[in-house]
Amino acid sequence: MTETQCREALSGHSYGRLAFALEDGPTILPVNYAYVEGAIVIRTASGSKLASVPMTTVAFEVDEIAPDHMSGWSVLARGHAFDITTAIDELSETLRELPFMPWLHGEKGHVIKINVREVSGRQFS
Amino acid sequence: MTETQCREALSGHSYGRLAFALEDGPTILPVNYAYVEGAIVIRTASGSKLASVPMTTVAFEVDEIAPDHMSGWSVLARGHAFDITTAIDELSETLRELPFMPWLHGEKGHVIKINVREVSGRQFS
Repeated sequence: MTETQCREALSGHSYGRLAFALEDGPTILPVNYAYVEGAIVIRTASGSKLASVPMTTVAFEVDEIAPDHMSGWSVLARGHAFDITTAIDELSETLRELPFMPWLHGEKGHVIKINVREVSGRQFS
Repeated sequence: MTETQCREALSGHSYGRLAFALEDGPTILPVNYAYVEGAIVIRTASGSKLASVPMTTVAFEVDEIAPDHMSGWSVLARGHAFDITTAIDELSETLRELPFMPWLHGEKGHVIKINVREVSGRQFS
């Protein structure tokens, strides 16, 4: 898949998996997200496991696999994670207002932004 | 979810995502797998990205999410990865014969076994 196709796949979906390193090894969490201006934005509830995402390079994956697991595609994005919960620039303020996790509105959560530095994707059948 | 429920979820599925650390950060790959005697078994094609899985602690995730992304469950397993491609013990030989990736039969792939040390799972709605 081309870089354009990969980024289109990212913006066309809203559910993926985030992987990051913890001291005792890697972990994976399923998350809802939005893809805006080259960044993946994730809102977390306070005290959730996502609050432990390190502010370093993380991996994010989106896929669509046929029920027989014999065909589909997968896109991997990597980039640096930033906690923009209290950032005061205009873009961060806009991103915090995204309606992609409405059931958390009103809750004091963290908002994490991943600046996607590299994407790769493959189709298989 | 209890540990028993988590392990039942692992044995009831055959498709998940593997996360592991590379020098430049974590990565995620979707994989077919079998769960046998407390271990996740993955067969890889030679030269695939999976051939770069480090023989250390890795993370593995299986989930089932409703199309509206509002309910579902997710199980996270962690454990040490071992390359059993050429291991000569009886269990390794049995695992290598598992029919879970038939389209790779005859191909000289790697077989990786992850001894699941810890599992955790959650349901959300």
